[in-house]
Amino acid sequence: MEEILLKKCKLVVDAINPIRKNIDILIEEGKISRIGESLSASGIIIDCSDSLIIPCFLNGHTHSPMSLFRGIAEDLPLHRWLEEKVWPLEQKLNNELIYYGAKLSALEMLKSGFSGCADMYFMMDYVAKAFIDLNFRGVLCEGLFDFFEKSLTDKKIKLALDMHKKLLSLNSPLIKSSFGPHATYTCSKELLEAIAELSKEFEAIVHIHVAETEDEQIQSLKRYGMREVEFLDRTGLCNERSLYAHGVWFDEKELRILKEKHASIVQNTISNLKLAAGSTCDLKRLIDLGISCCLGTDGPASNNSLDPFEMMKFSSLMLKHMYKNPAIISAKDIFKLATYDAYKILFPELKGGAVSEGYVADLAIFDLSEIKLRPLLFDDSTHIINHMVYSCSGLRAKHVIVNGDFSILNYKSTKEDEQELLNRFDEVFNRFINS
Amino acid sequence: MEEILLKKCKLVVDAINPIRKNIDILIEEGKISRIGESLSASGIIIDCSDSLIIPCFLNGHTHSPMSLFRGIAEDLPLHRWLEEKVWPLEQKLNNELIYYGAKLSALEMLKSGFSGCADMYFMMDYVAKAFIDLNFRGVLCEGLFDFFEKSLTDKKIKLALDMHKKLLSLNSPLIKSSFGPHATYTCSKELLEAIAELSKEFEAIVHIHVAETEDEQIQSLKRYGMREVEFLDRTGLCNERSLYAHGVWFDEKELRILKEKHASIVQNTISNLKLAAGSTCDLKRLIDLGISCCLGTDGPASNNSLDPFEMMKFSSLMLKHMYKNPAIISAKDIFKLATYDAYKILFPELKGGAVSEGYVADLAIFDLSEIKLRPLLFDDSTHIINHMVYSCSGLRAKHVIVNGDFSILNYKSTKEDEQELLNRFDEVFNRFINS
Repeated sequence: MEEILLKKCKLVVDAINPIRKNIDILIEEGKISRIGESLSASGIIIDCSDSLIIPCFLNGHTHSPMSLFRGIAEDLPLHRWLEEKVWPLEQKLNNELIYYGAKLSALEMLKSGFSGCADMYFMMDYVAKAFIDLNFRGVLCEGLFDFFEKSLTDKKIKLALDMHKKLLSLNSPLIKSSFGPHATYTCSKELLEAIAELSKEFEAIVHIHVAETEDEQIQSLKRYGMREVEFLDRTGLCNERSLYAHGVWFDEKELRILKEKHASIVQNTISNLKLAAGSTCDLKRLIDLGISCCLGTDGPASNNSLDPFEMMKFSSLMLKHMYKNPAIISAKDIFKLATYDAYKILFPELKGGAVSEGYVADLAIFDLSEIKLRPLLFDDSTHIINHMVYSCSGLRAKHVIVNGDFSILNYKSTKEDEQELLNRFDEVFNRFINS
Repeated sequence: MEEILLKKCKLVVDAINPIRKNIDILIEEGKISRIGESLSASGIIIDCSDSLIIPCFLNGHTHSPMSLFRGIAEDLPLHRWLEEKVWPLEQKLNNELIYYGAKLSALEMLKSGFSGCADMYFMMDYVAKAFIDLNFRGVLCEGLFDFFEKSLTDKKIKLALDMHKKLLSLNSPLIKSSFGPHATYTCSKELLEAIAELSKEFEAIVHIHVAETEDEQIQSLKRYGMREVEFLDRTGLCNERSLYAHGVWFDEKELRILKEKHASIVQNTISNLKLAAGSTCDLKRLIDLGISCCLGTDGPASNNSLDPFEMMKFSSLMLKHMYKNPAIISAKDIFKLATYDAYKILFPELKGGAVSEGYVADLAIFDLSEIKLRPLLFDDSTHIINHMVYSCSGLRAKHVIVNGDFSILNYKSTKEDEQELLNRFDEVFNRFINS
């Protein structure tokens, strides 16, 4: 891997360091090796004298191949959306569709400064291939459901294990395997227990939807006589490897368990609003309790954008609204959730989410000659972070470096011809939708 | 003005016509003169064979020069934000700052497909100059306050009339003059009555903040023994020329008056959330009552983006959330508010907000090779409109035509060097903030 030198970086901003100005960043072997003045390198040198450098964002929860379903059926109640639209289409999915759906989403994420995501769907080896092809990180899991059908449980356990082995065998620094039982209302206790064992054995994250709707808590109470978190805890699925997507409907007892057992929560505000679950995740309460949190977009069929800036803005604004207090959380706290905190949750084995020596070189570089970044106060990282959280929705990164390698250079993928990719996506999508 | 021919427009979408494909649009004398096949023209011909053409958006409520204050002080309670930050800075404003603040905002709006806005601030002749220089429409009003000081009332009436005459004397097809008493809690009854007379005499819109917070209704009850809309009605300020910004806190009686008197409401969801007023405008109820509505961003210091797509997304998602019903309003209805309905409110004297023969040529043209517009179903305008409302935040228009003339061509202003404008903005801003 070639050395990269980011020369004369005008502004370097992250959630844990003071702002730095007019400084060089040297990248070697996938890591930020030096930050200082007048550095030199033998490899690629990029002039950053009109650039803002930040750590990449991580998307804590998505279903990347669902770009195939984006905008197809909107403004419907959830059950009609699933039954009439999504489920019949999902029957027709194949490897090629999964590959192109995931690839389109990965490209969309990369272009706005995401370096990776936690992703749950089907045929995840094809998602892995798409991500590797674009140089994008994934914490991937095959979505598992047995719908309480005993005949399916063993098959699903085997599927989980087979996919886990397939993903490990890729031996890619970009791909991490995790386990993905869909939810407590779609997976039997037996399936969940088996996944708990696998997670322990392989020290792998378990990514699961929890407390997204009030109804699933009612179902849990009926089925098991206890709420979801208590049930998951007894099933061996509430620990430091647990990644709970949504976390809207927790009671006090559940919050205590989450805190004690060090489970992590991914907030997905936009999806909660769009599917009108009636409430959104109370991130402020979780943070105050010391529960580790990050942010997610959810899938492109239920958001529908994959944009870190919009994700942060909705998250912040809904908390202000919920608490009737514009000062309830700072832009910097929100930015930290989407960068530094997300790396600690999804990649605890890496140091990431900040621009520091020894940290993984996942960096997003933005051109400062952008209206959305005006006015510019150069002495104040708060001011830049305010812009990123409140004003930058849709902003595209000029360069994105993931694992020390360029994924995006001058606004374009370095790995694929983008127009070619769009054409291929259109072609497979049209075949799919007309079949 | 030269003829413009948009050749082979791949998709033409608006809120009132069926989708049209592979068709030509001829623009003459500021209007769409013909839509048909194989048209010819003597002027500028633009290949639109990979483009989506929509009517421009209108921003129903903003304070464009406040781009100067964007991101400067966030996450503060409203009174501290105003007293410690905004008001001291506003004391230092001058014509040059107003001009560059407004110009930066107009450019940001144009680039995402807005053709104009209703704008309330100070020194509005300089805002008019900025808008005319960039070929952008404005319904402009000088913001008026007398804070119940008798000594100020006559001065403010004179200011309003003087500015009205200045704006009329510009004789620009892009600039409309309106009157801008700030709110019932900052303007005396005498000032409001005088503005009511002027509005009647000049047949001019009155743009005013109404029912943004619960507190201002309480103040109105204390001061006048009645709620704001009833008070405004008795003051001669509730009629078909009334443009009420916000409209969050109405009771049933006020809704009846609004409907009877044909006042219009501009919803500003993002600003309501950001300032944590505790609720947002219930657009659904207003629409169901037949009250005319449109959407606004509010000023760039309290949103902080000026983005029509984000404005539509927040508006839609908060209604779904408020009603706990994802089907409460369609993307198409939201799109109609931001285009066709907004033109009827802000420019009732023009036919606008749709791509139809005889309509004003305010058109935004987007490149279809954009990830946010995937997947593309070419037979379905609903699908395209879903993308625009839910997935396109931050999308930039390739070309924007306002009043039959290009404001944006190939992503750049046709009227100004953008880098030069940013440099000038930075220069005047730095002088201002360091003075």
